[in-house]
Amino acid sequence: MSKNLTSRAEDYSKWYNELVVKADLAENSAVRGCMVIKPYGYAIWEKMQAELDRMFKETGHQNAYFPLFVPKSLFEAEEKNAEGFAKECAVVTHYRLQNDPDNPGKLRVDPEAKLEEELVVRPTSEAIIWNTYKGWIQSYRDLPILINQWANVVRWEMRTRLFLRTAEFLWQEGHTAHATKAEALVEAEQMNDVYAAFAQNFMAIPVVKGVKTESERFAGAVETYCIEALMQDGKALQAGTSHFLGQNFAKAFDVKFTNNEGKLDHVWATSWGVSTRLVGALIMTHSDDKGLVLPPNLAPFQVVIVPIFKTDEQFEAISEKAESIIKELKALGVSCKYDKRTTHRPGAKFAQHELQGVPLRIAIGPKDLENNTVELARRDTLTKESVQIDDIASTIKELLEVIQDELFSKAKNFRDEHTTEVNDFETFKKILETKTGFISAHWDGTAETEQKIKELTKATIRCIPMSNKMEKGTCVYSGKPSTQRVLFAKAY
Amino acid sequence: MSKNLTSRAEDYSKWYNELVVKADLAENSAVRGCMVIKPYGYAIWEKMQAELDRMFKETGHQNAYFPLFVPKSLFEAEEKNAEGFAKECAVVTHYRLQNDPDNPGKLRVDPEAKLEEELVVRPTSEAIIWNTYKGWIQSYRDLPILINQWANVVRWEMRTRLFLRTAEFLWQEGHTAHATKAEALVEAEQMNDVYAAFAQNFMAIPVVKGVKTESERFAGAVETYCIEALMQDGKALQAGTSHFLGQNFAKAFDVKFTNNEGKLDHVWATSWGVSTRLVGALIMTHSDDKGLVLPPNLAPFQVVIVPIFKTDEQFEAISEKAESIIKELKALGVSCKYDKRTTHRPGAKFAQHELQGVPLRIAIGPKDLENNTVELARRDTLTKESVQIDDIASTIKELLEVIQDELFSKAKNFRDEHTTEVNDFETFKKILETKTGFISAHWDGTAETEQKIKELTKATIRCIPMSNKMEKGTCVYSGKPSTQRVLFAKAY
Repeated sequence: MSKNLTSRAEDYSKWYNELVVKADLAENSAVRGCMVIKPYGYAIWEKMQAELDRMFKETGHQNAYFPLFVPKSLFEAEEKNAEGFAKECAVVTHYRLQNDPDNPGKLRVDPEAKLEEELVVRPTSEAIIWNTYKGWIQSYRDLPILINQWANVVRWEMRTRLFLRTAEFLWQEGHTAHATKAEALVEAEQMNDVYAAFAQNFMAIPVVKGVKTESERFAGAVETYCIEALMQDGKALQAGTSHFLGQNFAKAFDVKFTNNEGKLDHVWATSWGVSTRLVGALIMTHSDDKGLVLPPNLAPFQVVIVPIFKTDEQFEAISEKAESIIKELKALGVSCKYDKRTTHRPGAKFAQHELQGVPLRIAIGPKDLENNTVELARRDTLTKESVQIDDIASTIKELLEVIQDELFSKAKNFRDEHTTEVNDFETFKKILETKTGFISAHWDGTAETEQKIKELTKATIRCIPMSNKMEKGTCVYSGKPSTQRVLFAKAY
Repeated sequence: MSKNLTSRAEDYSKWYNELVVKADLAENSAVRGCMVIKPYGYAIWEKMQAELDRMFKETGHQNAYFPLFVPKSLFEAEEKNAEGFAKECAVVTHYRLQNDPDNPGKLRVDPEAKLEEELVVRPTSEAIIWNTYKGWIQSYRDLPILINQWANVVRWEMRTRLFLRTAEFLWQEGHTAHATKAEALVEAEQMNDVYAAFAQNFMAIPVVKGVKTESERFAGAVETYCIEALMQDGKALQAGTSHFLGQNFAKAFDVKFTNNEGKLDHVWATSWGVSTRLVGALIMTHSDDKGLVLPPNLAPFQVVIVPIFKTDEQFEAISEKAESIIKELKALGVSCKYDKRTTHRPGAKFAQHELQGVPLRIAIGPKDLENNTVELARRDTLTKESVQIDDIASTIKELLEVIQDELFSKAKNFRDEHTTEVNDFETFKKILETKTGFISAHWDGTAETEQKIKELTKATIRCIPMSNKMEKGTCVYSGKPSTQRVLFAKAY
């Protein structure tokens, strides 16, 4: 199967699209722009969910659930937010179908079942949630509210790609309410840190933490924190965002509270989210021309055992060994699948597990039984060796940690090699045409320059890094004075 | 707070509605018929999800995700299914809003952004899923497909009640594909058994397993298995259903496979689901006039510790004890919350935890420190006693198991006391007017009689119990011959 995969060098975009489908992660559906997430792809998302959910709860958040629909009058209440999402939202106008008198056997919208007020399928939930919070908040004693929601959202994007940009996607959205601006700012930054820690420790993806420029901010936010990653084709991908919303939504929905001095004030807000887009980032960061490469911390199963046998007796003896290895691995918290299918030959199984990125493969044949060994193959390096079966479980556990670390290092080296400090616009353009990657350059701070650079090069300001040092310089485009470098790149 | 709760005897329906809101489980939203599930209510649902998900995976199922929207042409493909849901479905007709020229600052549907084909918000996913399975199945080697989905669905019900019947609800829906009728039947029955085991062992709700009559079947099913529970007001509640769909969807979507004899055949199907309705069933089965009573196996936290103190020194000494108890409980897998809020007095905390149904409450005061005791209060029996602090953790663990068992027994006794064998229609009517509950009676097997009884008494046939013995008798209404009793009740 993997032989048929287009190589990254040949056509990176085609490689990605083919890989998602061939590795059984997802496919396009009958609904324009919506995907079907297949069990193997969904298992990766479940692993991500479990870890993120744990991190949210550790930082004091609780889950809740708010309606899928936003009545139009609420949707339009926060003007900038509405403006940002109105152009791409699915709208429910009717609540019934009836038999179509002109087409027997077919249905049509019942004209008499028109809703008094249209319902927008949530593209994000600030509006419906802040309208709810209004009833929950009277005093500073009701604050903070620290809530997260796991949900589906719909944004009617015109150009879609599996995981990266789909009309419907799955995500989590945190929505918090605070008594002070300072507390809300700390929350927004904290959640961006949580995302960065998750990306680095679980996805093995190095990220730059930063804030967005005004033109790249979330519609309705005062400040947008983000984590930015670099894909293997040198394009950046925004992997998560956390917004300080100021009092914008509290004002739009009239949410006031009595503070501890007895005065009325509007509530301060944050929201933050990551989505199934992360699965796309995971694929594009680590995978190769043979297929997926999954970091052990997010692989649906970390080890697969393939028996190699001719006789039933051999199969039984191998199975006994396999089951005992699985038991030992389980005790160490390592997940392992025993691929004993009789419908596939070992070679086909090897190809499938390679394509699907299982971190470690164990093959056991009759000779291994004699020698008390197994063949252990690493997916990331495509190397294999014969290892003694004693202590195999702890060997594997350590090796999985090594793989996790090495995937991160490899991605970080790539990112660092593809991050260039640039001081003149000619070099800026040349890099985007050849090496691509992140460009660290001075910018005069105006939206006009940002826009002009985008028009000329397709590169946008991905973020103003949090780690930035103040440094005097001149804008790479306008030559005007600047105090710090920002990160440019072409982006997904 | 609990003093204000309407009693069950006074008005059961009002008691339920008040309790859901006062116990902070859920509330109505700005969207007609849709609820907001608040953190405490959602935590119960999360506990249910975790356990069900474990049971589904143990029985070989994997999770996946399919689109929220069903194109109208797919929706109408399986005729009976379409007919069953067409009257109550939300329909997306447009994909954009624009500024309303007649109302500055307002938005309206953009008439130029009309969809070529309307999209139905899924009321259930058979159509979109079987249209997808068509691409996955060619041979018997591709079978079975054992998939579950956790999702939101929308049914535009006219009369809604929090958890019990809402326009949007959360659920899981299993959709499986099989090579043989026998295998599909086994699957459908197995999943009904899984639901029954979950209801009994985790929700502490006794259920009757049975099959539905033709008129009560899921639209598009050949056979519907169900579990039926009895609420405290004597009304039945359908807690879960599992459908044998025959080849109906395979035929509607042309899903054929080559069987192991090389012949083409249509695939056999099942689907099965439970929803947030279960939270409603949980509340109505166990709770009392003081508030919620939660079975320990599904309580968001099983124990709460309330410190009773006047001085900071007392608080510190009590907190030390509390933290050590929490640690011991955690080691035994018991969840415990330390309610050290300074904004509430102990009495208010007691009332809140009673209202919210925390199974066990520990109070620790200065005297307890002296005597090495704590006050331990059971929510279900409203009893309390002073117990020695030594071995408190294992005492509590055992007590939680006792509570779980006793709640089940109590509910089972109630159910058994409210199940009456009836042989004549006068008694039938009288019971429904006074004692209510399940009525076990002979039925002649016709839809006409079933309908007539419903018109006259509002009672429906809840199920034909799986445990039924064949027994000769005469129909309670028509007097015609019958071979077995069925279960009637008024139902939610």
